[in-house]
Amino acid sequence: MLTERSVRIVAAHKLLRRSRRTEAGEFLAEGAPAVTEAIAAEARVPGTVRELYLTEAAGSRHPELARQAFAVGVPVTQVTERAAAALTDAVTPQGLVVRCTLPTATVEDLLATGPRLLAVLVQTSDPGNTGTVVRLADAAGADGVIVAGAAADPINPKAVRASAGSLFHLPVVTAPDAADLIGQLGRAGLSVLASTGHTDLELGVADRDGILDLPTAWLFGSEAHGLPAPILAAADERIRIPIYGRAESLNLAAAAALCLYASAAAHRRAG
Amino acid sequence: MLTERSVRIVAAHKLLRRSRRTEAGEFLAEGAPAVTEAIAAEARVPGTVRELYLTEAAGSRHPELARQAFAVGVPVTQVTERAAAALTDAVTPQGLVVRCTLPTATVEDLLATGPRLLAVLVQTSDPGNTGTVVRLADAAGADGVIVAGAAADPINPKAVRASAGSLFHLPVVTAPDAADLIGQLGRAGLSVLASTGHTDLELGVADRDGILDLPTAWLFGSEAHGLPAPILAAADERIRIPIYGRAESLNLAAAAALCLYASAAAHRRAG
Repeated sequence: MLTERSVRIVAAHKLLRRSRRTEAGEFLAEGAPAVTEAIAAEARVPGTVRELYLTEAAGSRHPELARQAFAVGVPVTQVTERAAAALTDAVTPQGLVVRCTLPTATVEDLLATGPRLLAVLVQTSDPGNTGTVVRLADAAGADGVIVAGAAADPINPKAVRASAGSLFHLPVVTAPDAADLIGQLGRAGLSVLASTGHTDLELGVADRDGILDLPTAWLFGSEAHGLPAPILAAADERIRIPIYGRAESLNLAAAAALCLYASAAAHRRAG
Repeated sequence: MLTERSVRIVAAHKLLRRSRRTEAGEFLAEGAPAVTEAIAAEARVPGTVRELYLTEAAGSRHPELARQAFAVGVPVTQVTERAAAALTDAVTPQGLVVRCTLPTATVEDLLATGPRLLAVLVQTSDPGNTGTVVRLADAAGADGVIVAGAAADPINPKAVRASAGSLFHLPVVTAPDAADLIGQLGRAGLSVLASTGHTDLELGVADRDGILDLPTAWLFGSEAHGLPAPILAAADERIRIPIYGRAESLNLAAAAALCLYASAAAHRRAG
């Protein structure tokens, strides 16, 4: 016989599928960093987290999490190891998962905050990369991340995991059309810089020339294909990271780290 | 009945295991970037590559590879899709694999070349990270990578794949004992800089103070545990990358990118 609890877990399990996340307006985030940050976010923005699922073992390893969840009014449901495994696509389930409300912020909302530094992923397909860039953007003090075009769902379980909790720190919004987005970024007063291996202007030269001092949206393309030609053409500047050795290219996380940190440093110098 | 070819493929398949690689003194590298770079390395250092395995489909997609292999005297064996799948642990086999000689260079060999920039991985456990740092070190123009302590095998198939061919560009050597290694690096005239989140000295400040101008070995620890305390203490300087937002830390690839590129830029300025 299905108990009410098992019905809820089956419903939560389905959130591993994108279509179900969109329908339900909910997603799952797994592991101690994500759960900790989600509960902290609930304290700032009530309604962020709907339920915490916890195995007995995870509850003993992280006794503070159930306490913090209670303190902000998040229901805590103890689940079996088997149920916890059904709430993740990870090979090694961590035994702690939060069910959260899908973020509803839009590009317009983000631009209305007057951002000084944004990371924009254009048609990147690897959710792990998306999550990694969210974490990097957070570390570099960026004001948000935009996932544009037919890109990976930023709320995919792998992306949530790779973001290591940063998904709950800064707005991560989607834009259906990358070309339209670039127009919008420009009208919002942002300098649109495209990170690409195929151009002359080096990051260090752009920095010395003051190009990085302006409020900036950095565009990053997929590792396999880079940025689409029309997007490259529409950017204000195309900037490359020099390759000093014989590697053919940098991976996306490395390129994003170098570009976002260069901008962060320039903004701090420019004041 | 087993043909001679199928016996060779079974033998090659066993190279997916570390123990067998050590015994045979051989390893496998898969995919077009790795195969291209391996064949180019064979042209410089004969004996690097022992055999190229190619499916019919991969041969049609990359007709130049079999030609280049012939040109440098590497035997080319056409294999079935099924055999190609047995020569990789990747989910999506690429249909082209080279069997290579295990690198035999040592830390002493590497230090004898008078390196100006080295990346040292201390007890990192994820082979994907190891390969990514090899690729980054190559991009930043480093002179080699050292994998120290109980760290991931740099010749693990995942590490080879993540290095995207860079494994064939620069020496990647192992050191059994990380503490001994630090002594060796110091005696070779290298400044030993530890990348850690737990210190006051920021990367940008170290750069302005000229600390990065010296020949440098950068130490990176595992993402979960960082560098061990005795290793941190033995380094000449402990340096952190500032976190401007609320992320708890940077991932290893991002930290390595920022540290190695900061050194590369400093060395170019210092001349």
